[in-house]
Amino acid sequence: MSAVLELTCDLIRRPSVTPADAGCQDLIAEILARAGFSIERLRHGEVENLWATHGGDGPVLAFLGHTDVVPSGPVEAWTSAPFEPAVRDGRLYGRGAADMKSGVAAMVVALEEFVRAHPRHPGRVALLLTSDEEGIAVDGVRRVAADFRARGERLDACVVGEPSSRRHLGDLVRVGRRGSLTGRLRVRGVQGHVAYPEKADNPIHRLAPALAELAAERWDEGDESFPPTSFQISNLNAGTGADNVIPGELRAVFNFRYGTASTAEGLRERVEATLHHHRVAFDLDWWLSGEPFLTRGGALRDATIASIRALCGVEPELSTGGGTSDGRFIAPLGAEVVEVGPCNASIHKIDEHVALDELERLPALYRAIAERYLGLA
Amino acid sequence: MSAVLELTCDLIRRPSVTPADAGCQDLIAEILARAGFSIERLRHGEVENLWATHGGDGPVLAFLGHTDVVPSGPVEAWTSAPFEPAVRDGRLYGRGAADMKSGVAAMVVALEEFVRAHPRHPGRVALLLTSDEEGIAVDGVRRVAADFRARGERLDACVVGEPSSRRHLGDLVRVGRRGSLTGRLRVRGVQGHVAYPEKADNPIHRLAPALAELAAERWDEGDESFPPTSFQISNLNAGTGADNVIPGELRAVFNFRYGTASTAEGLRERVEATLHHHRVAFDLDWWLSGEPFLTRGGALRDATIASIRALCGVEPELSTGGGTSDGRFIAPLGAEVVEVGPCNASIHKIDEHVALDELERLPALYRAIAERYLGLA
Repeated sequence: MSAVLELTCDLIRRPSVTPADAGCQDLIAEILARAGFSIERLRHGEVENLWATHGGDGPVLAFLGHTDVVPSGPVEAWTSAPFEPAVRDGRLYGRGAADMKSGVAAMVVALEEFVRAHPRHPGRVALLLTSDEEGIAVDGVRRVAADFRARGERLDACVVGEPSSRRHLGDLVRVGRRGSLTGRLRVRGVQGHVAYPEKADNPIHRLAPALAELAAERWDEGDESFPPTSFQISNLNAGTGADNVIPGELRAVFNFRYGTASTAEGLRERVEATLHHHRVAFDLDWWLSGEPFLTRGGALRDATIASIRALCGVEPELSTGGGTSDGRFIAPLGAEVVEVGPCNASIHKIDEHVALDELERLPALYRAIAERYLGLA
Repeated sequence: MSAVLELTCDLIRRPSVTPADAGCQDLIAEILARAGFSIERLRHGEVENLWATHGGDGPVLAFLGHTDVVPSGPVEAWTSAPFEPAVRDGRLYGRGAADMKSGVAAMVVALEEFVRAHPRHPGRVALLLTSDEEGIAVDGVRRVAADFRARGERLDACVVGEPSSRRHLGDLVRVGRRGSLTGRLRVRGVQGHVAYPEKADNPIHRLAPALAELAAERWDEGDESFPPTSFQISNLNAGTGADNVIPGELRAVFNFRYGTASTAEGLRERVEATLHHHRVAFDLDWWLSGEPFLTRGGALRDATIASIRALCGVEPELSTGGGTSDGRFIAPLGAEVVEVGPCNASIHKIDEHVALDELERLPALYRAIAERYLGLA
């Protein structure tokens, strides 16, 4: 059994449902310490974070990943137990097999091999892990990035090992992500009886024209790197349950996914202006989950594309699609960020899996990126 | 203690929270049977209904009321126990003191006195009581009216003893009521992740423009008897609770209060046309709680106005305002309907009460209306 398959299996056996780490980082710390890495544990609240580094002066290249996984869902729906790795038909099955214990294991193996082959490499290589990527993502990389900023920890380039590929390893590389901005709205009205609307102030009716305007708004046209900003209302609730009572308040939650054509501040202002224009009485709390980021070009992006061409034989599509990733916290430190990992079709699903063929090639890909980025290939 | 005060107290002591009657109708049946009335009990499901009549051929004048009351609310908030009648400062306190055990007691006493004074009166006088006016109002007067229609029971005029007065007994008479039409809407969408709106169909966004149009619509201008139709959305709910999930459906409940300038059919058609126009995929269930009714003029209306002038010394305002009443089921039988009773400022509230002075004058008012209507005064 190869080192990467064995380590992936060892990680899947640890039921690290977010924000639990279940010993994954202990295991990895032990492996990397043995390989000569300096290990730092950055625990925040219930969340385990690991920072392992090797090398001295020069550019800093970090690999980034998470040891936590989403819940398995109904265990009886799985063909084999979600936390028991199982190989069938050329695939490894288990919760986290694709997202992203295979990527984590491959990064660890790649780093071990890299320092064994280049004991006195230029620059520094590092691994940053958290157990809080699938959850609320507050005490994970968000906090570590704040720590790094506070102590002046340098980070020039970052490879996120998230499952990015579509059909073949390397066919899609994320070079950015949209930002995510959430609003929690409370519209204030006056409760009353439906037979006496003149004595009440219906928050549903108050909001209706603003809601129509917000839902129809075209926020921007996107740009060469990002699609147009999208706005979605996820929750909208008003009413006492009684048919004959006008409710006294309405609550709504909405979310923007936005690119570099808009700013969080600009979107906030436009929403609030629309509400004020329609004379809605409201309270609105905003939560900026992540600013958009984009790696327009640079040494890491070049090294990644060249390594994929050489090892995977495909020309990668450069994309900024999908949800958010922890890359959003690293990019603001000034690092070039790319995300590349195995195929993502099965992530978060029943019978999550990774193709053994992809898994076996992944350490070499990560190692090649490091070698190219640091001028060793 | 006068007969009307004693009977009102006896009724308040019976905690007839809708749809319970708690023995009120037994007590009244006994009194009216003793006075020579024919008694018919029309129980439907859990609901008690009473039909008491006296007399023979000629016009039929019925008094209409209900023995059920709304819940007391927090007992500790009351100055005296809600189901213990208490006299203080010239008022009788208790749940139902105004709505409408005082009115029921006054109608009973008025009928007793009427038949004692006019044992061989022309026409018929009657009392119709239900215990299902404050609840869903299905097995009460709605069902009795259907029974009457089926068996050809004649009803020419109806005095509803609901609390109608504003500041002084008789200062406001209801000569009609708005109709009430409720819609239960389900908007069908497709659930998905907020990061991939192109794979989902957000029912909130779908409905938004139609909602704005419906909330802004002026349905009619009203007419000389009714205010403009009002439309109120009482409940609006969509969302899974998760911030990042586009919901798969939305549910809303709305209600029209409408006069004779619109029809239920017309309102239904306009709502559905608006939804279709905005390409909303929906299911919509309608519930017609009551058609509007209006007593434009006639012997009962004249008798009522004349009796109020003579006994209360005020000129009554003729109104069609307020909520619905059981008059909506009687008017379609072809009866002239008026509603007159004590002041309604305290109904459904903590420390509900009726002024003793009003209560004592109420039997004479009802008796005078009967005498005038049947040509005995």
